[in-house]
Amino acid sequence: MNFIRKIVSPAKKEDEGFYYELKKLLNFSPKKINYYKKAFTHRSLKLKDKKGNPINYERLEFLGDAMLGSIIASYLYKKVPKGTEGYLTQMRSKIVSREHLNELGKDLDLIQFVKSNFDKELVGNNIYGNIFEALIGAIYLDRGFNYCKKFIYENVIIPYVDIPKLEGKITSYKGLIIEWCQKQKKQYNFEVYEDSGNENVKHFSVKVSIEGSLVAKGRATSKKKAEEQASKRVYFALQDEITKT
Amino acid sequence: MNFIRKIVSPAKKEDEGFYYELKKLLNFSPKKINYYKKAFTHRSLKLKDKKGNPINYERLEFLGDAMLGSIIASYLYKKVPKGTEGYLTQMRSKIVSREHLNELGKDLDLIQFVKSNFDKELVGNNIYGNIFEALIGAIYLDRGFNYCKKFIYENVIIPYVDIPKLEGKITSYKGLIIEWCQKQKKQYNFEVYEDSGNENVKHFSVKVSIEGSLVAKGRATSKKKAEEQASKRVYFALQDEITKT
Repeated sequence: MNFIRKIVSPAKKEDEGFYYELKKLLNFSPKKINYYKKAFTHRSLKLKDKKGNPINYERLEFLGDAMLGSIIASYLYKKVPKGTEGYLTQMRSKIVSREHLNELGKDLDLIQFVKSNFDKELVGNNIYGNIFEALIGAIYLDRGFNYCKKFIYENVIIPYVDIPKLEGKITSYKGLIIEWCQKQKKQYNFEVYEDSGNENVKHFSVKVSIEGSLVAKGRATSKKKAEEQASKRVYFALQDEITKT
Repeated sequence: MNFIRKIVSPAKKEDEGFYYELKKLLNFSPKKINYYKKAFTHRSLKLKDKKGNPINYERLEFLGDAMLGSIIASYLYKKVPKGTEGYLTQMRSKIVSREHLNELGKDLDLIQFVKSNFDKELVGNNIYGNIFEALIGAIYLDRGFNYCKKFIYENVIIPYVDIPKLEGKITSYKGLIIEWCQKQKKQYNFEVYEDSGNENVKHFSVKVSIEGSLVAKGRATSKKKAEEQASKRVYFALQDEITKT
């Protein structure tokens, strides 16, 4: 165990906890832990390196923002072959909006890693998106473009990017399912319960049944998100029936 | 020869000329020639693929712009460790400015590849930058991020990116050299002559002599650029003397 730690990471004893938490978050092994420490260091600590350059996440934010932008651009280019340049630009803006990035940073509970000189409870929302971008910058420096892409697919594109919803064609899957059930005179039920398991962050699960049979489940960090996730699954399960009516 | 062509490129006979010109431009072997054909196709041709999606360079422009932005961001991040987030953002804007990209597209003589339904002579300047970006998008799709990076280093960063000049510390190397010579009461001479060789595009060479000895040469597509290049070389050759006075 100690032997393995020495190979995969030159981390000092004090970094061990951080290293393992980080590995779980990233879903791969970080190599140079210092990049990640920087990604979670707020300038209020006033840290400097040997050359007098400040150590905090602001420069990494710039880098991560650029990497995120190019990876989302390449995803959209391939995913929507009919999308014009204007369409692609607009969709990307929605995906990388400050609001969206703050939500992502919150869901990943990145604030637990942040070292600062202020009360984290009092901080504005933007810190979540900022450290999310800084983390992407650190991944790029540590492991290169492809790991960055993998992280963004796993944490942004797969769980959150939903083209019909971004296009505004569907604003709420829950609303759509309820409306459809009412029109079709079908009984429906949303069963919501807390389901945090062993995780630090509170989670909720939702079961959606139609006419007494379970159609889909969802699980997320808020009731609303879990309901949307489950409803989206119902939508895709019953898409043929829903769209023809 | 025919055998090699079949391996490296499934190009049709009619694409052969384009393939070899392109390979010279890229400094590596393109694999899927269709991406590059698209990068040089103007929408005035109104081409469509089997699915009815338009074939022109506009979507590739979006992709190339994003890739260029992220590669320049990573270059600046590493190159200027003291640069704040604001500094890095500003420097990047200067490097990827429309004006700068148009200049790059012109210097690479990309217009020779463009297929369109209009008179190329009458076209606005922006087409040069647009097809330069589209070409970067095509490189990304064909060969991935690292080839893209290599192309941008060879064609943007190494020949054009000059941090002191972008910072506005030095606005003209020629001006700086002349001013220094006058102060130091040294004789100087700029000898400019046309020097296109076998190339399609006109080129100029410049020799800069100080006190009768040749100090540096420059060569570029305009007199002004060749003079700046030569002067910059003089500056770096005599940097110790120039900066101490």
